[in-house]
Amino acid sequence: MASTAGQVIRCKAAVAWEAGKPLVMEEVEVAPPQAMEVRLKVLFTSLCHTDVYFWEAKGQTPLFPRIFGHEASGIVESVGEGVTDLKPGDHVLPVFTGECKECRHCKSEESNMCDLLRINTDRGVMLNDGKTRFSINGKPIYHFVGTSTFSEYTVVHVGCVAKINPEAPLDKVCVLSCGISTGLGATLNVAKPNKGSSVAVFGLGAVGLAAAEGARIAGASRIIGVDLNPKRFEEAKKFGVTEFVNPKDYDKPVQEVIAEMTNGGVDRSVECTGNINAMISAFECVHDGWGVAVLVGVPNKDDAFKTHPMNVLNERTLKGTFFGNYKPRTDLPSVVEKYMNKELEVEKFITHEVTFSEINKAFDYMLAGDGIRCIIRMDA
Amino acid sequence: MASTAGQVIRCKAAVAWEAGKPLVMEEVEVAPPQAMEVRLKVLFTSLCHTDVYFWEAKGQTPLFPRIFGHEASGIVESVGEGVTDLKPGDHVLPVFTGECKECRHCKSEESNMCDLLRINTDRGVMLNDGKTRFSINGKPIYHFVGTSTFSEYTVVHVGCVAKINPEAPLDKVCVLSCGISTGLGATLNVAKPNKGSSVAVFGLGAVGLAAAEGARIAGASRIIGVDLNPKRFEEAKKFGVTEFVNPKDYDKPVQEVIAEMTNGGVDRSVECTGNINAMISAFECVHDGWGVAVLVGVPNKDDAFKTHPMNVLNERTLKGTFFGNYKPRTDLPSVVEKYMNKELEVEKFITHEVTFSEINKAFDYMLAGDGIRCIIRMDA
Ligand SMILES: NC(=O)c1ccc[n+]([C@@H]2O[C@H](COP(=O)([O-])OP(=O)(O)OC[C@H]3O[C@@H](n4cnc5c(N)ncnc54)[C@H](O)[C@@H]3O)[C@@H](O)[C@H]2O)c1
Ligand SMILES: NC(=O)c1ccc[n+]([C@@H]2O[C@H](COP(=O)([O-])OP(=O)(O)OC[C@H]3O[C@@H](n4cnc5c(N)ncnc54)[C@H](O)[C@@H]3O)[C@@H](O)[C@H]2O)c1
Ligand SMILES: [Zn+2]
Ligand SMILES: [Zn+2]
Ligand SMILES: [Zn+2]
Ligand SMILES: [Zn+2]
Repeated sequence: MASTAGQVIRCKAAVAWEAGKPLVMEEVEVAPPQAMEVRLKVLFTSLCHTDVYFWEAKGQTPLFPRIFGHEASGIVESVGEGVTDLKPGDHVLPVFTGECKECRHCKSEESNMCDLLRINTDRGVMLNDGKTRFSINGKPIYHFVGTSTFSEYTVVHVGCVAKINPEAPLDKVCVLSCGISTGLGATLNVAKPNKGSSVAVFGLGAVGLAAAEGARIAGASRIIGVDLNPKRFEEAKKFGVTEFVNPKDYDKPVQEVIAEMTNGGVDRSVECTGNINAMISAFECVHDGWGVAVLVGVPNKDDAFKTHPMNVLNERTLKGTFFGNYKPRTDLPSVVEKYMNKELEVEKFITHEVTFSEINKAFDYMLAGDGIRCIIRMDA
Repeated sequence: MASTAGQVIRCKAAVAWEAGKPLVMEEVEVAPPQAMEVRLKVLFTSLCHTDVYFWEAKGQTPLFPRIFGHEASGIVESVGEGVTDLKPGDHVLPVFTGECKECRHCKSEESNMCDLLRINTDRGVMLNDGKTRFSINGKPIYHFVGTSTFSEYTVVHVGCVAKINPEAPLDKVCVLSCGISTGLGATLNVAKPNKGSSVAVFGLGAVGLAAAEGARIAGASRIIGVDLNPKRFEEAKKFGVTEFVNPKDYDKPVQEVIAEMTNGGVDRSVECTGNINAMISAFECVHDGWGVAVLVGVPNKDDAFKTHPMNVLNERTLKGTFFGNYKPRTDLPSVVEKYMNKELEVEKFITHEVTFSEINKAFDYMLAGDGIRCIIRMDA
């Protein structure tokens, strides 16, 4: 099986040469994994907003040429020195953030923000030697968040690889390695709604719909979807969202609208927009005494979260989460199991499918706001 | 015992006739308790900042003449119609906030913010008939937060009375009916530090010292006291505070000083100042991944709590508490038990004692920032 182990692999990859320009299919060299690294054969990958955001490179230092991609599933091709947890043939999900199992965060029951392997969007190289594993005729091609799954083969730190049930269909569970787990975990691990409670979800993109799916799984009786885009409401019905609020339809703050709908506020809210006003509304719309608001969306650099401290003193809780508080290696396998035992529905998140050579179509769908997730089949 | 039941009782009370003027000892009439009310013989009371704040009546609508006082202990003299939980002779603590046991808050495990009996500093009358139970020659004298304990007898809603162990010394446990329980509960019920963890306490007044006492009881290994007034540090040593930080000694934000002292931040912080900058620092000084900050201090009307949302997304939690999340009737008896079994040390909070006729001295001590709690003996 690992006849390629220790060798440079030549394979196809979709390379971003310039910000905002279509990816170009290239033959790349993928070096063997070094210490604590594994080389994966990527089978399925999907496109997430974060890929598009860094590909557009607006407001960040651009880093090109680069191979994007971080939602994926695959099989271990070979492992580097010191890797004992994984072996060739294992079915895995690569993850944009990691778990070293040794730092204070990894040892804490509450945190998943590993000191060593926490997401780093600026770094385009591997930790071990500060170099890339990808090249074209010797010229280095940069990595993206340690995963770079828009390539038939990729090299990933072992701490960023979750070993999953080999019976799980890789063309489905590939979407569990980023946004879907983030929204799901925000509800199940952080907001933790009780059965029968009310939950507001701000933003009905992939992350928000996954937060709603979490509320459905937790047995919430009212799931209120909030979005500025009324097109999102039709899709959201499949995710158990029972009521919809478009802030644009009211001339008062949406937190007041929700408080009136719910006799004082929802039990839980999950913010999945990245918009600062939605973050403040999500906090202020929870009930005093017991309400919990969870922020998920990534804000702008200059945003300020602002509220009257009395809103806090009245026994509301404000929390934030990164990757739904899942520790990639320890917890992702159980998310896959939730799908296997039919608790979690994954199919409804997958609205498109393209072949690897058509990868730019996936970008078009996302830029047009069409659908939720587009699966890219690497073998086709 | 209840030979006075059903009768008007004439007794001594310290009446505030005007904002900021010394209280005047008067003979007042105390009407019998009405439905769901109890009349208490007050034995010990102590002075809290909230009494002084509303007596000074700066920035609120003044309500005079009024009988202040809300930290106290006493014995039930008689009960009104419908009262089944209490009987004459019961040892009790009156509380400025209540527990009706029927509203959504009282039924929630998380909240103590009773819809019916939540603190109301503007109301000077009883709920049952909107009238006062105190009068002088027929002229009504207003109540304060439903307790008015600066009187030998007072009438209180049954929902604001905690029945306690009759063996508990009333001259000690009287201080448990407000500030001390607030600080203690903020740590034990809300911040919940693990054994061996680090806790920062902002503000070393009675409430902050009680928060530190909570951290000591929880087994925190580092308790960092933060105050602008270095005089507070000497006293704080008795409360297990291990390190002191005066923000005035540094030319950088105190949250940065604390982050440096603790390799990234404390595990828990409890803010007991009422100052908005301290609230923000208390939040920003907790460690990412697992840190929890609890706000206790009462802010000004126009204050805004402001932080970068990334501080939330990095898995910090912001909480607020009212009366340390204790439900007065259900939970206060167990705080008294903590004192009885020597877990909680109450004596160190009591720095002065005066007779009832000397009550204005207690105001002088507090205004001078001298000591923590002054006990007022009603029988002397
Ligand atoms: N914390 C994490 O670990 C993590 C992981 C993945 C994604 N994210 C973040 O989650 C957020 C959502 O991601 P997504 O892929 O679902 O994005 P998306 O763009 O598909 O969806 C966002 C939705 O929010 C709506 N919206 C925007 N402003 C709004 C407002 N003020 N009120 C109500 N709705 C509003 C938009 O109309 C859109 O439908 C993004 O900020 C993303 O960066 C965070
Ligand atoms: N939430 C509740 O249920 C509840 C109940 C009782 C009291 N309180 C509030 O708790 C707070 C504390 O009460 P207390 O009686 O202990 O007050 P206090 O005045 O005795 O103590 C406050 C301390 O905070 C210090 N301080 C002020 N600003 C500061 C800053 N920026 N940084 C550091 N220290 C600062 C002061 O020097 C003082 O020592 C008050 O705001 C009070 O209203 C709340
Ligand atoms: Zn780690
Ligand atoms: Zn993603
Ligand atoms: Zn109630
Ligand atoms: Zn008080």
